[in-house]
Amino acid sequence: MCGIAGAWNVVDSYNVIHDLLLALQHRGQQAAGVVLEGFKSVKGLGLVESVLTDERFVEGSKGIGHVRYSTFGSISEIQPISAHTLKGTIAIAHNGNIYDAPLRRKFVMENGGIFSTTLDSELFIHYFSIAPYTDPVNSLQWTLSRIPAAYALLVMHETFIAAARDPFGIRPLFYGRYDDGYVVASEDAALHAIGATDIAEIDPGTMVLFDETNQPKVIRFAERKDRFCSFEFVYFARPDSNFYGVNVHEVRKKLGQKLFEESKVYADVIVPVLDSGFSGAIGYSLVSGIPLDLGLIRNHYLGRSFIMPKDRQNIVRRKLAPIKSVIDGREVILIDDSIVRGTTMRIIVEMVREAGAKRIYVGIHSPPVKGPCYYGIDTSRRSELIASNLEIEELAKSIGADRIFYLSVERFKEVFEKCGVKGICTGCFDLEYPVQ
Amino acid sequence: MCGIAGAWNVVDSYNVIHDLLLALQHRGQQAAGVVLEGFKSVKGLGLVESVLTDERFVEGSKGIGHVRYSTFGSISEIQPISAHTLKGTIAIAHNGNIYDAPLRRKFVMENGGIFSTTLDSELFIHYFSIAPYTDPVNSLQWTLSRIPAAYALLVMHETFIAAARDPFGIRPLFYGRYDDGYVVASEDAALHAIGATDIAEIDPGTMVLFDETNQPKVIRFAERKDRFCSFEFVYFARPDSNFYGVNVHEVRKKLGQKLFEESKVYADVIVPVLDSGFSGAIGYSLVSGIPLDLGLIRNHYLGRSFIMPKDRQNIVRRKLAPIKSVIDGREVILIDDSIVRGTTMRIIVEMVREAGAKRIYVGIHSPPVKGPCYYGIDTSRRSELIASNLEIEELAKSIGADRIFYLSVERFKEVFEKCGVKGICTGCFDLEYPVQ
Amino acid sequence: MCGIAGAWNVVDSYNVIHDLLLALQHRGQQAAGVVLEGFKSVKGLGLVESVLTDERFVEGSKGIGHVRYSTFGSISEIQPISAHTLKGTIAIAHNGNIYDAPLRRKFVMENGGIFSTTLDSELFIHYFSIAPYTDPVNSLQWTLSRIPAAYALLVMHETFIAAARDPFGIRPLFYGRYDDGYVVASEDAALHAIGATDIAEIDPGTMVLFDETNQPKVIRFAERKDRFCSFEFVYFARPDSNFYGVNVHEVRKKLGQKLFEESKVYADVIVPVLDSGFSGAIGYSLVSGIPLDLGLIRNHYLGRSFIMPKDRQNIVRRKLAPIKSVIDGREVILIDDSIVRGTTMRIIVEMVREAGAKRIYVGIHSPPVKGPCYYGIDTSRRSELIASNLEIEELAKSIGADRIFYLSVERFKEVFEKCGVKGICTGCFDLEYPVQ
Amino acid sequence: MCGIAGAWNVVDSYNVIHDLLLALQHRGQQAAGVVLEGFKSVKGLGLVESVLTDERFVEGSKGIGHVRYSTFGSISEIQPISAHTLKGTIAIAHNGNIYDAPLRRKFVMENGGIFSTTLDSELFIHYFSIAPYTDPVNSLQWTLSRIPAAYALLVMHETFIAAARDPFGIRPLFYGRYDDGYVVASEDAALHAIGATDIAEIDPGTMVLFDETNQPKVIRFAERKDRFCSFEFVYFARPDSNFYGVNVHEVRKKLGQKLFEESKVYADVIVPVLDSGFSGAIGYSLVSGIPLDLGLIRNHYLGRSFIMPKDRQNIVRRKLAPIKSVIDGREVILIDDSIVRGTTMRIIVEMVREAGAKRIYVGIHSPPVKGPCYYGIDTSRRSELIASNLEIEELAKSIGADRIFYLSVERFKEVFEKCGVKGICTGCFDLEYPVQ
Repeated sequence: MCGIAGAWNVVDSYNVIHDLLLALQHRGQQAAGVVLEGFKSVKGLGLVESVLTDERFVEGSKGIGHVRYSTFGSISEIQPISAHTLKGTIAIAHNGNIYDAPLRRKFVMENGGIFSTTLDSELFIHYFSIAPYTDPVNSLQWTLSRIPAAYALLVMHETFIAAARDPFGIRPLFYGRYDDGYVVASEDAALHAIGATDIAEIDPGTMVLFDETNQPKVIRFAERKDRFCSFEFVYFARPDSNFYGVNVHEVRKKLGQKLFEESKVYADVIVPVLDSGFSGAIGYSLVSGIPLDLGLIRNHYLGRSFIMPKDRQNIVRRKLAPIKSVIDGREVILIDDSIVRGTTMRIIVEMVREAGAKRIYVGIHSPPVKGPCYYGIDTSRRSELIASNLEIEELAKSIGADRIFYLSVERFKEVFEKCGVKGICTGCFDLEYPVQ
Repeated sequence: MCGIAGAWNVVDSYNVIHDLLLALQHRGQQAAGVVLEGFKSVKGLGLVESVLTDERFVEGSKGIGHVRYSTFGSISEIQPISAHTLKGTIAIAHNGNIYDAPLRRKFVMENGGIFSTTLDSELFIHYFSIAPYTDPVNSLQWTLSRIPAAYALLVMHETFIAAARDPFGIRPLFYGRYDDGYVVASEDAALHAIGATDIAEIDPGTMVLFDETNQPKVIRFAERKDRFCSFEFVYFARPDSNFYGVNVHEVRKKLGQKLFEESKVYADVIVPVLDSGFSGAIGYSLVSGIPLDLGLIRNHYLGRSFIMPKDRQNIVRRKLAPIKSVIDGREVILIDDSIVRGTTMRIIVEMVREAGAKRIYVGIHSPPVKGPCYYGIDTSRRSELIASNLEIEELAKSIGADRIFYLSVERFKEVFEKCGVKGICTGCFDLEYPVQ
Repeated sequence: MCGIAGAWNVVDSYNVIHDLLLALQHRGQQAAGVVLEGFKSVKGLGLVESVLTDERFVEGSKGIGHVRYSTFGSISEIQPISAHTLKGTIAIAHNGNIYDAPLRRKFVMENGGIFSTTLDSELFIHYFSIAPYTDPVNSLQWTLSRIPAAYALLVMHETFIAAARDPFGIRPLFYGRYDDGYVVASEDAALHAIGATDIAEIDPGTMVLFDETNQPKVIRFAERKDRFCSFEFVYFARPDSNFYGVNVHEVRKKLGQKLFEESKVYADVIVPVLDSGFSGAIGYSLVSGIPLDLGLIRNHYLGRSFIMPKDRQNIVRRKLAPIKSVIDGREVILIDDSIVRGTTMRIIVEMVREAGAKRIYVGIHSPPVKGPCYYGIDTSRRSELIASNLEIEELAKSIGADRIFYLSVERFKEVFEKCGVKGICTGCFDLEYPVQ
Repeated sequence: MCGIAGAWNVVDSYNVIHDLLLALQHRGQQAAGVVLEGFKSVKGLGLVESVLTDERFVEGSKGIGHVRYSTFGSISEIQPISAHTLKGTIAIAHNGNIYDAPLRRKFVMENGGIFSTTLDSELFIHYFSIAPYTDPVNSLQWTLSRIPAAYALLVMHETFIAAARDPFGIRPLFYGRYDDGYVVASEDAALHAIGATDIAEIDPGTMVLFDETNQPKVIRFAERKDRFCSFEFVYFARPDSNFYGVNVHEVRKKLGQKLFEESKVYADVIVPVLDSGFSGAIGYSLVSGIPLDLGLIRNHYLGRSFIMPKDRQNIVRRKLAPIKSVIDGREVILIDDSIVRGTTMRIIVEMVREAGAKRIYVGIHSPPVKGPCYYGIDTSRRSELIASNLEIEELAKSIGADRIFYLSVERFKEVFEKCGVKGICTGCFDLEYPVQ
C-alpha cells in the first residue's frame, strides 16, 4: 500500500506535501519522495520526517509526493518517478497495482521501450508517450482509459497536475482548496489535518485537472463501476478518514457490533489489539456490555527504523506488552481487525496466556482472508494466508487460542450496505475480484 | 525526566541496553547514550533507534545507558558521562535532579574542581573523587550519603556497576536476572519487555552492587524515607509498569473512577486525550456508565524529530484529529491525566468545538499543578503553570471549555493509600516538598 | 570529462572498481557510481572515497563504474545508468559526448521513447533496445555503428561486459588481466596502480567483450579513423599514463622544450604552476638551462568539497601560495599547460607580482584555445575563451603579465608526430573538428 | 602533531578559523574542532572541510580551533576542550606534548581532580583552576610558568583569548591583524593565506593577550631558552612558512645542497619523493648539476579518508606511481626529507626497481632519526625507528636500496646556524633533549 499527495498553487508546496504525507505515513513507512515544479526531487528510504527535512527544502508552489509501503525496491525506485517525453516532462505518484503489468510491460518493450525501474507505475509514462495525441492532456486521458486498474494517480506535467482514480475506484483519492490553490491526498483526513476546505472525493473513472486557470476541471475518461477496497475500511485507513461520506471508525465500530451479534461470544473483558483493533473493540463492548480494558499496551517508539531485533518473536514482544492486572485469571476476548499470516497473533496469544488469562477468545471483525490482493495491498501469497489453509478449529489451535471467531462475508457486506457504501471489493475475502 | 538502564555480565550488552532504553523511550526522546566496558561510548541527539544503530555496535558484556528528556544541552552533555579519577575511571547515568546543585558546584569549584559539563550529575563524580577513601565502593557510598536527592543512579567502575536510589525513592529503579547476569532499568516494564526474571525494586537509600562475584550485594547507605513521585503514576510511566507492586494503569483507572465519584459530571460520551488520558477515561467510563469512544485520534508518526511545523497550534493539529461522528452534537467529557501550561488543551478544546461538540467538559484525574518539580520533572516555572495562576472558572474560560474539573489533593492521596502506595511526593500539587 | 572503470570475474569487484576510480579521480570529482552484477548500484555526489565507502560494499565479481566531472546533473543522473529491455537489463558508463545528441533524442522520442535522464548517454540504451536484433551482442554492435562519436563506453549486460571506443578513438580506454579475470579503465595508469598485467589499449572502432568464456573477444564494428584528443596529453591525463605507447609526462616535457626552442624567452627562474605545469616546466628548464624552483606551492587539501569561499579570488589564494624568497626581485617564467578562461592565471600573476617579481612571463606549452570541445571536455563556450577573443598582447595585459607566449599549432602537432602519435584531434586549438 | 588557530574580533570567526585550519590541514587530518564565543563548539573526525561545514556555521566574532594528527582518541577527545571553573569557562587548543604529563595528572587527581579526557592538554585547565589567584589572566600566567614544555597554546576565556608559547619555543605560533581584530595560527603561511597583515612570531616564554581593549598585550611569563623543533623545518611545516624569519623551502633546499656537498653521490637523475622531498631535491639538483625529473607521481585524492585498502603496501602503491620512461635503465637518486620506520621507503624502492632503475640511491636531507620526540611529534617508539636499530649498510639492505646516505648531525646544525636559526631542538637526531 502507498499514499500519495499533491499541491497546486500553494505557498511552499514542499512543506504542504510534507505535512500531507506525514498524515498519510500509516500508508507507507519504507520510503518517501516529492517532485516539485521544475522536476526537482527529494527522495529517500525511511519516514517522511527523516527524508523531507528542512535542510532539503525546495522552493515552488506545485508538486506531488508519495510514501511507499513495500520493503522491496532500491532508492532509485522511490516514487514519484519522472521522465522526459516529446510531450514534456512528467512525474507520477501511484497508489495501487496494475494487475496485468507484466503483459503490458512486455508489449512496450517489444516496441523498443526501455524501463528505468521495475515499477508497474512506469507504464503510465510509456502509455502517455505513445498515446496518439500531441496534447499532453489528451494523451493522459488516453492512458487512463487504456489501463483499467488499480490506481489512484497523481501526474505532474510542466503545465498541469492531474489526479485520477480508476473506474472501479479501488483506491481512494480526495482534493480540496488550500491557500490560493488546491491539495490532493489519498485520504480526506490528511486534507483536514492541514486545514483544507471544500474537500471532495474524486469520482471513479475521472481525473481532476489543475492548470493555469486555477479552476479544477473534472474530466471523465471511463464509466464508473464502483468496487472500493473494503480493506481500506477494515484496516488500512486512518479512523478519522471518510470514504463515500462514511467514517472509517464508525464502520469499524459497526463491524465490531455485528461481530458480537453474529457470534454472541461472552467473556470477562474485551482487550483491543492496539491500534488496529481499537474501534471494533469499542463496538463489541458497547453492544455486548462487556467492559473494554487496556490489557495490551503498545510501544509507539518501536519499529520506526530498519534496526530491529532480527526475529519476529522479539519484535512483537517489544512492541506489545500485557498488563497482568487486567488479564490475570480472566476470560479475555482479544479483538483485532484481521489476520493475514497469523504470526503476530500467535505471539500475542502466548503473551496473554503468560499473563494469566483463563481463556482467550480471538474475535476478528472481518471475514477470513482467503486470497491475495491484486490491487495494491501487500497481503501474502495464498500459501501464506493462514485462513486459506486451515479450518477454523485448526486455526484457533495454530495460534494457541481457545477459540477464534470471524465475521461472515454476508454480515460483513451487510454492514457496508447499511452504511450506504455500495460496490465494495471483497476479493481477498471471497475471491470475487472485479477485474483480473 | 530521563530513563536509565544497565547490564552486567550479559551477551552483547549493547543490544540489551538498546532494548531496555527503547522500552524507556517515553522517559526521554531528545538524546540517547551508552557507555560500555572499557568506557567506549555511543551517544547522539534523537531517538534510541537512530542513535544506537547496528553500525555503531560495541562489544562487551557490561554497560550503562541513558535517554534524555531535556531539549537543553549539547551533544557533549549527553549521559552517561565519564571521567578519570585516582580511584579508576567511572561513568554515571542519572535520572533525577540534585535540588541544591548550584551550591554544591560552587563548593567543588572553590576547591579547584573543574566541570566539563553543566549537568548537576557531574557532582557525583567529583564527590566520588574527593571522598576520603581509596576504595571505590566506599567512595561511592560516601558520595550517596552526602547527596540527599533526587536520583536514581547507575555508576560503572572498571570493577563494578552500582544501581542506587536516593533515600526518598523519588525516582524509580529496578533490577532483574538476565542471561548469565543482571539488568537494571528505571521501570520494571522494560525488564519484562526483554524477558528478565526475578525482578525487584531497589530500596530507597540502598545501592545494589554488581561485581566479579556475579552476586548482587545490597548496601544501605541511608535510612529509607519514602516519598515516591506521584507524577510517575499519573503521567510519566508506562501503563504496564508497577511501582511498589502496584500497576500504573490500575492506579490511573482508579484516579478516573475517583474523579467521577468526586465530580459526578455526566455527558453523552467520554473521549480520552490519547495516549495519556486513556486509562483514566476507562475508569471514568466504568463507574459512570457513560460510553467511552474514540473522538480524538493520534498520529504516532509525528513529533519524533526536530523538524516540525514551527507553531504549537500546528503541531497539535497534526498530532491529534477529532472524529466528527463521535463528537458532533454531543456533550463530551475529555479526560486527561494533567494540565501543565494549558496550551495543548486549549487547542484540543478548539478542535473538538469545531467538530460540533454541544458542550465540552475537561476532566483531569489529578489535582491542579501548582508548583514546579525540583526532582527531575521538567514542569515549567511557577509563572507558566496555568493552575497556579487562575481560579478554576477562569481556567475553564482560558482553555475554552464549558467546565474543567480536577481531582482534589485529598481524594488523590486517598487513591494511593488504598492501593498501598505509602509516602508519595505531591510537591507539585500541594507544595509540600520532601526536601528543598 | 569523466572516467570509467570495469571489472569482470574478480574477487570483490566493488573494491577493485573503487581502486580504479580512485586512480581516475582527476577525471571527475563531482560524482561517483558503480553498478555491480545483479544491477545493484551505489552512487553519490562527491569523491570516490566518500561515495564508495566500506559500509556500502556490495558483493559480486563483475561491475562497472564512473566518476563525473560535470557540476550539472542531480543525483538521479549519476552514471552508470541502467534500464530494462526485452533483451535484458543493461547498465552503461560513458566518457565522451554525443555531439548530435539533441537530434537523436528527438528521433527516439518521436517513436514513443521516454528518457529518464537528460544525459546523452541514455541514447545508447535506446539504440540497444530498438536495434533490429534479438541478440544483445548484435544489438550493441549495431548501436555502436550508428553513433559515430565521441565515446569510451562500458556496457554491462546480464551475460557480459563490453568495453568500446568510437572509431576516432577520441577518448581513451584500456584493459588488462587481474585476478582470475579482467579490468578496464580510462587510463593505463589506473590499471598499473592496482597491479594489472597484459595491459592493452582498446582499438578505435572496436569493442572488447568479456563473457562467460572468460576470453576477451575483440569485435570491430567500424573502421579506425584515429583522432585522439590532444588535450588528454596536454592537461587531462595523469603524467604516468601512456596513450599510443607514449608517456604523458614525456610529451609534456617535450612540449615545454619546444616552447623554449620556439620562443627563446629567458629569465632568472622557472616556476611551474602546480600541478599541471610541472612536466612542461621541467622540459623548459632542461633545454634553457634556467633553474626551476618552487615559487608557488599548492594546498592539496583544498577544493575537495562543495564548501568553499564563494569567490574565485579567494579559492585561488587559498589553493596556491607564493614563496617570496624564490620570486622577490627576479624575472620569473610561469609555466602552465593551457589557459581557458584566464581567471585563475590572472590571480596567480597578481600574487606573484605581490611577492616581488621584477618581471613575469607566462609560458603555455600548448596553442591558444580558440574553440569549444564537442567531444566531452567542459571547455567553455567560445565567448568565454580568453584566447578566442584577444590578441596576444591584449591577453598579456588582461592577465597582468609582462608577456605571454604559447606554442604554435604547427610546433604543437610536430611534437606529437615525432613521438609517434598520429591522428590527434586539435579541434579546440585550430577548429578542425573530426566530426560535427 | 597538531595545528591551532584563533580569531579575535573578526566578522564570522567560524569562517576565518575554517580558512586558517584548512591552511594548517597538513598538521593534522584526523579531527577538527572549533569553540566559538559562548563556548559553542563544532567538532568531528575527519578533514576540516567535512567537519566545519556551512550547515554547522555558528555566529560570533571570537573563537579558537584545532586540527588533530593523532589517530588515537575518540570524538569526545577532540580539541578545543572546555571546562567550567570558578574563574569562568575556558577552552584550550594545544599543539605539543607535556612531557611529564602522567606525573602531573597523578598530582591533580590526588587532590581530588577529575579528568574528562585522557589528553595531557586538560592539565592546563586544572592548573588554571587551582592557581592561587582569582583573576583569570594571573591564573593563566601562573599555569604557563608551572608547565615548562611543550606547547603552543590558545586559551579562550569569556573575557579574552590568549596565545602562548613555551619558554623553549618548541612549537611555532604567529599572530597578525585581520578585519577589525586579530588572528593566530601555528604557521605564518596560514595567516598569509587569508590576507592577514603585521604578522609576528610569538616570543618563546610569552603570551599575547587579546581582550576588550582590542590592543594585544605581550606578557612574559618565563625567560626565553630557544630550542625550536628542527623537524618543523625538515618535514612538518608548509614550504611557504617561515620560522625565525627563515623560509622553510629555502632551508630544505640548503639541506639538499649540503647533502650533496657532504656525500658527493652522483647518478643519472634525481627523483624527489613527493611532496616532502621536493625542496631538498631542487637543492641537490642545483649544486650537483644532475637533472631533476618527475619519476614518481602522487595521487592527491588518496588517503583523505579512513576507507583505504588495509595493507600499507597497497596504500603506497595507490598513492605513488613511477614513470617508467624517467627511471628505466638509469641510476636514480631518490631524495626525501627523512625516514622514520622505513616501511614506505621500502615499497617506493621496490616500485622504482620494478620500473627498471639500474641503481637506486636514497638521499635523506636530515640525520638518521635515533630517538622519539617527547614534544608532540608522533614519531614511533625507539624500537620502531629503523635508523636506531640498524647500521647504514644494513639499513640500505633493509629497504632494498643500493645505497642510503644521510646528512650528518654536524652539517645539519650548520645549515640552521648559517640561516640564522639559533637554538634548535635536534633531540630525535642526537638524543640531546632540552628538557625531559
